[in-house]
Amino acid sequence: MKNLKDEVNFRIKIGGENLCVAIAQDFETGEVLMTAFMNKEALEKTLDKGTMHYYSTSRKKIWNKGEESGHVQKVKDVLIDCDGDALLFKVAQSKAACHKGYYTCFFRRLDKSGALKIDRKRVFNPDEVY
Amino acid sequence: MKNLKDEVNFRIKIGGENLCVAIAQDFETGEVLMTAFMNKEALEKTLDKGTMHYYSTSRKKIWNKGEESGHVQKVKDVLIDCDGDALLFKVAQSKAACHKGYYTCFFRRLDKSGALKIDRKRVFNPDEVY
Repeated sequence: MKNLKDEVNFRIKIGGENLCVAIAQDFETGEVLMTAFMNKEALEKTLDKGTMHYYSTSRKKIWNKGEESGHVQKVKDVLIDCDGDALLFKVAQSKAACHKGYYTCFFRRLDKSGALKIDRKRVFNPDEVY
Repeated sequence: MKNLKDEVNFRIKIGGENLCVAIAQDFETGEVLMTAFMNKEALEKTLDKGTMHYYSTSRKKIWNKGEESGHVQKVKDVLIDCDGDALLFKVAQSKAACHKGYYTCFFRRLDKSGALKIDRKRVFNPDEVY
């Protein structure tokens, strides 16, 4: 059978970096928590340490998720899509994924009027964490 | 309240196009079906027609999902992430999302040995559809 690392296609080029999409999904509830990019090093760190590491395209460096806040994402399962440029990680989320204090970064929902509504409660106060 | 279109940040630049990430998730089971990119036009078509339209970075054009196969994704719910560069669409998937015949594009899972295993059955034969 094929090896994961050989199958990932880091075809997404942003700022000179070769990337794939990484999606974090709660392994118990199925909630999509966030999405970001990974380069080869971020993927290797994620697989080696068992916690999510992304590549920050704005800061242009490896982003060890939860390093500052303690809100780590422990990897439970790894899936790869058909063309290899996206990975789906089922994770155990500590406290919350979003730096704005919500469990998922997708905390705003489009309502029928075309407006965005926040339909969740914060689980922490960002001012106390960052 | 804020409007969705004003809040999307098409900050991801690939091949000269301004894009955001779009994730399609089964609105009933919570399965992540696929991920791809959208430019402004793809998002507008998706919102106007109620079915998923992506921007194909390889073919460099709007990709009306299911146009050829009939396997459309009907939009049930739209969410946006904290920094506005990713959208999560909860969809009703007709037949299957993946052109390789699987319900989700994420049909390969990493097992403990580091190998990828297919742990799903095909729901259609691609040779009969494409």
